[in-house]
Amino acid sequence: MKTLRDIGEDALIDRLIGLVPRDANPAAGPGDDCAVIDQGGSTLLLLKTDALVEHVHFLPTAPAHAVGWKAAARVVSDFAAMGGKPEHFLITLALPPETTVDWVENLYRGFGGCLEKFGGFLAGGETSGVPAGSAAVISIAATGSVSRENLVLRSTVKPGDILFVTGTLGGSIHGKHLDFTPRIREAEWLVTHFKPSAMMDLSDGLGKDLARLAAASACGFRIERENLPLTPGCTADQAIGDGEDFELLFTIHESLVGNLQAAWPFTDTPLTRIGKMEEAGNGETLEGGWEHFQASHQ
Amino acid sequence: MKTLRDIGEDALIDRLIGLVPRDANPAAGPGDDCAVIDQGGSTLLLLKTDALVEHVHFLPTAPAHAVGWKAAARVVSDFAAMGGKPEHFLITLALPPETTVDWVENLYRGFGGCLEKFGGFLAGGETSGVPAGSAAVISIAATGSVSRENLVLRSTVKPGDILFVTGTLGGSIHGKHLDFTPRIREAEWLVTHFKPSAMMDLSDGLGKDLARLAAASACGFRIERENLPLTPGCTADQAIGDGEDFELLFTIHESLVGNLQAAWPFTDTPLTRIGKMEEAGNGETLEGGWEHFQASHQ
Repeated sequence: MKTLRDIGEDALIDRLIGLVPRDANPAAGPGDDCAVIDQGGSTLLLLKTDALVEHVHFLPTAPAHAVGWKAAARVVSDFAAMGGKPEHFLITLALPPETTVDWVENLYRGFGGCLEKFGGFLAGGETSGVPAGSAAVISIAATGSVSRENLVLRSTVKPGDILFVTGTLGGSIHGKHLDFTPRIREAEWLVTHFKPSAMMDLSDGLGKDLARLAAASACGFRIERENLPLTPGCTADQAIGDGEDFELLFTIHESLVGNLQAAWPFTDTPLTRIGKMEEAGNGETLEGGWEHFQASHQ
Repeated sequence: MKTLRDIGEDALIDRLIGLVPRDANPAAGPGDDCAVIDQGGSTLLLLKTDALVEHVHFLPTAPAHAVGWKAAARVVSDFAAMGGKPEHFLITLALPPETTVDWVENLYRGFGGCLEKFGGFLAGGETSGVPAGSAAVISIAATGSVSRENLVLRSTVKPGDILFVTGTLGGSIHGKHLDFTPRIREAEWLVTHFKPSAMMDLSDGLGKDLARLAAASACGFRIERENLPLTPGCTADQAIGDGEDFELLFTIHESLVGNLQAAWPFTDTPLTRIGKMEEAGNGETLEGGWEHFQASHQ
């Protein structure tokens, strides 16, 4: 009988989607950074859930404060990727009974520090035990909001659009994965001044995530490998495959590239053109990126 | 250093609440069945998160279909307890890689069956691996809605109000905990015809949950033990302590009792008067109810 290890995350999700009732007219299809709920007003409701698992997303030796920051910042990053902002958070903790109160309090302090900096409120939560020896699981659910005209999806790229990333890629395992800055300031500026034709945040690595962006838009792509903004000490393969960069990957029409580069106001956040979208069937494929359930990069 | 086993769930939550930014003017305080978000319109947004942990909330031998039903029904029950209804669901699965695809598909089918019956759509989700041997965790987040005039909180009981429960109590471990019917139909009728002064659903057992209701309203209570609607084969102690009944516990003004009992239209759902609310400091205390992290009834 097939296991999750055999088929991986994306194939699993494809099989599950048809088994549960869905909105007849969703504002965004499954597979974007957030679910988008159209309540009829000028502001759209964003919904996001995201989990951190001990030994998978953080080690038992990681400072609890940093784990809490990461738990909040990953979700803030997803709202940024849609052009939106965070609103209300729910924290679900499934923890072994031997967890110290001190550890949980520091987790909350880190979580709260991220919300203080980037916005959002804690609205509630849930705690449960897990059997002694089981991995701790921290599951975050949150609402966000985005004005209708600022919403950016993954599925709206056109061939010929130019690919950009913020920041540098690769090597997040050396620390950035725990204390990264979600690019909400940059995303807000982009949707206001140079609205991307598509955008997402890089969580599983450029290799895997760019393939998802291209598939959502039924496009191909070609990377300018020599232009990838490498984190110092990293190779291009690491920039493509490491994952947990939490940078913005976005596309804009070719005619806007020069103006965007000239106007970019964030001197501490690099902006780099890394390639171009192509017609479906053209372009290249990339190896690398994090594969859930197979517990390895591929 | 103190651990979660030492202090238990309620004391933990009390310590955590001050560590994270919260709404200055929340529509409901922490500790109700759902968070309530006032977006300014005639309909309030409800938010709920709830987790099922293998070995804690279900055994590895439980049918996946039933686990999926339970995951959805627990959340539907919480919306019912506020007078509301379910809207959009997010499923987070943290599963060991040896989990079979078949198991996950059946989980989704059970989840979907509950949504088809009681309303709500799947809006998205997240999957992650956990280390081999770790307990599976299924975390559900959902939005619900309630019209402003139908909202029922825990914190609004008055001394003298009469306590009711739906259904029967105790013995859920023999099967009901996996295939219960969330009382959304009964709750909708109640808020329309005899709006309760307070309401909640019974998840951790009458002993623990009634104490929470009373504390939220700064009241005492007195149970008419001889009137408890016992599940056949159960004692009063089991009805108070077993937990996972997922029945409605609610209060109404004494003057409405006769009319409520005469009008109750659900012949397949017992309605039972079980006691009375008292001034704070009066009344009794109850032993029993499920204590998270201490993995035992107390």
